[in-house]
Amino acid sequence: MKLIRFGPAGAERPGLQLADGRRIDTSAIGGDYDEAFFAGDGMARLAAWTTTHADSAPNVPDNVRLGPPLCRPSKIVCVGLNYRDHAAESGMALPTEPVIFFKATSAIIGPNDDVIIPRGSEKTDWEVELAIVIGAKASYVDEADALRHVAGYVLHNDYSERAFQLERGGQWVKGKSCDTFAPLGPFIATPDELPDVGALAMWLTVNGERKQDGNTRELVFGVPTLVSYISQFMTLLPGDVISTGTPAGVAMGHKPPRFLHDGDVVALGIAGLGESRQHVRAYR
Amino acid sequence: MKLIRFGPAGAERPGLQLADGRRIDTSAIGGDYDEAFFAGDGMARLAAWTTTHADSAPNVPDNVRLGPPLCRPSKIVCVGLNYRDHAAESGMALPTEPVIFFKATSAIIGPNDDVIIPRGSEKTDWEVELAIVIGAKASYVDEADALRHVAGYVLHNDYSERAFQLERGGQWVKGKSCDTFAPLGPFIATPDELPDVGALAMWLTVNGERKQDGNTRELVFGVPTLVSYISQFMTLLPGDVISTGTPAGVAMGHKPPRFLHDGDVVALGIAGLGESRQHVRAYR
Repeated sequence: MKLIRFGPAGAERPGLQLADGRRIDTSAIGGDYDEAFFAGDGMARLAAWTTTHADSAPNVPDNVRLGPPLCRPSKIVCVGLNYRDHAAESGMALPTEPVIFFKATSAIIGPNDDVIIPRGSEKTDWEVELAIVIGAKASYVDEADALRHVAGYVLHNDYSERAFQLERGGQWVKGKSCDTFAPLGPFIATPDELPDVGALAMWLTVNGERKQDGNTRELVFGVPTLVSYISQFMTLLPGDVISTGTPAGVAMGHKPPRFLHDGDVVALGIAGLGESRQHVRAYR
Repeated sequence: MKLIRFGPAGAERPGLQLADGRRIDTSAIGGDYDEAFFAGDGMARLAAWTTTHADSAPNVPDNVRLGPPLCRPSKIVCVGLNYRDHAAESGMALPTEPVIFFKATSAIIGPNDDVIIPRGSEKTDWEVELAIVIGAKASYVDEADALRHVAGYVLHNDYSERAFQLERGGQWVKGKSCDTFAPLGPFIATPDELPDVGALAMWLTVNGERKQDGNTRELVFGVPTLVSYISQFMTLLPGDVISTGTPAGVAMGHKPPRFLHDGDVVALGIAGLGESRQHVRAYR
């Protein structure tokens, strides 16, 4: 299944993108794609409902705005320096165990919403990432059991303000949490939609110019390792998001760096997870 | 007002602790102390309701468990090294601007719930802290306007696993987010309950022995500065929590350090914000 949410920001409705491309409104199942949905076996209920109701369900209107394909989670856990080439371009050592940090959930927007360069920013950067959506509470989970706790996968652009992140003292969160810095979507793909989550091509362009070109094959720590590892330090709740890191090609890695400006257009995609596109706007 | 929540974990009801010490159930106002409550002028509604209904409202049962005095917020923003003496005992430089990091909201527990030493932990530590509860959405707020965005204050023990935080690579969040590491309460005090939030005595004991003895007078960055500063990097939502840092006297600062063990009892308090007490248990 491919789960979508659509409608005005803050008033999204849940839906599905079917295999034939048709998009249906799934509000009739009751509730939205939130923690209670994932915790309450919502994916199984949705699948069952769809087999009987897909034909009669209302279509999603054309040209409607897509929202993030899940409600605000309790947390977004991000993984740093998880591609060898990106660690190298960042001038940082490859970690011996996963580096994790949080991104504020107030940063989440729809996949094609505008991204706002924060006030005072001169170093707003992009990061195409594979994100994991947790399907079941995960605490002290073994790697062998990790995938049972995964509801699906989603495309994420982990926008980052490099001066806020690296030059303003202390921890990275300052440059990761600005409003609009977490476009998620277009959809959550359930694991059965992907032939191999460990071999997905990914790319990102700015104004049509290819900047990132990677593959999840190059992940230092893969999906089962990350879910298991993070669950040793905190409980992952249903609907929580883990963003697994970005390959080389971010603005900071270019010589000289060329950060984002008002008017730029960032497009990105991961094989099997669709594409998204953000217009970049200065804060006004 | 002093806002409390009471009842079994996950099924708390909202209440108030009145000036005469009586505790009343305020469920009749509708809803709980969550983002919608704070955003929807809930504090004013609660105050108005109380003037007419306090006498007839049901009492909170004696000996009932106290929960955290607010529902799970979108984020807990913590401030690091915000007392000179604690920065010194940590062997870290005093920051020139606030150091911020996040703590997972899944770590929140009631003020007197057990704290669980995570699996594999040998360096679980305590931190008595003044925490701010945001009352109104705050984005790019000036210091002069900051206090208008504050709903109240709450006692917080910012439990920290020092090996996870400092010896496991990367960012502090790993040692700050373990389940049970954020006891909040006993109550949220509205600003009018405190004569001066910039001069509150605070203390913490372990097994009756005084470990921390500080005063918010020693904060490097005070409440208006922190609210304003953090709001430059992200939007603070109603009900969000900012924990302002801890004074000297943590386990890590002792020579030799003496971290927490199964069976220890940690008690703490801040003048005007009450006291809390956690029994320390090993993970089983």
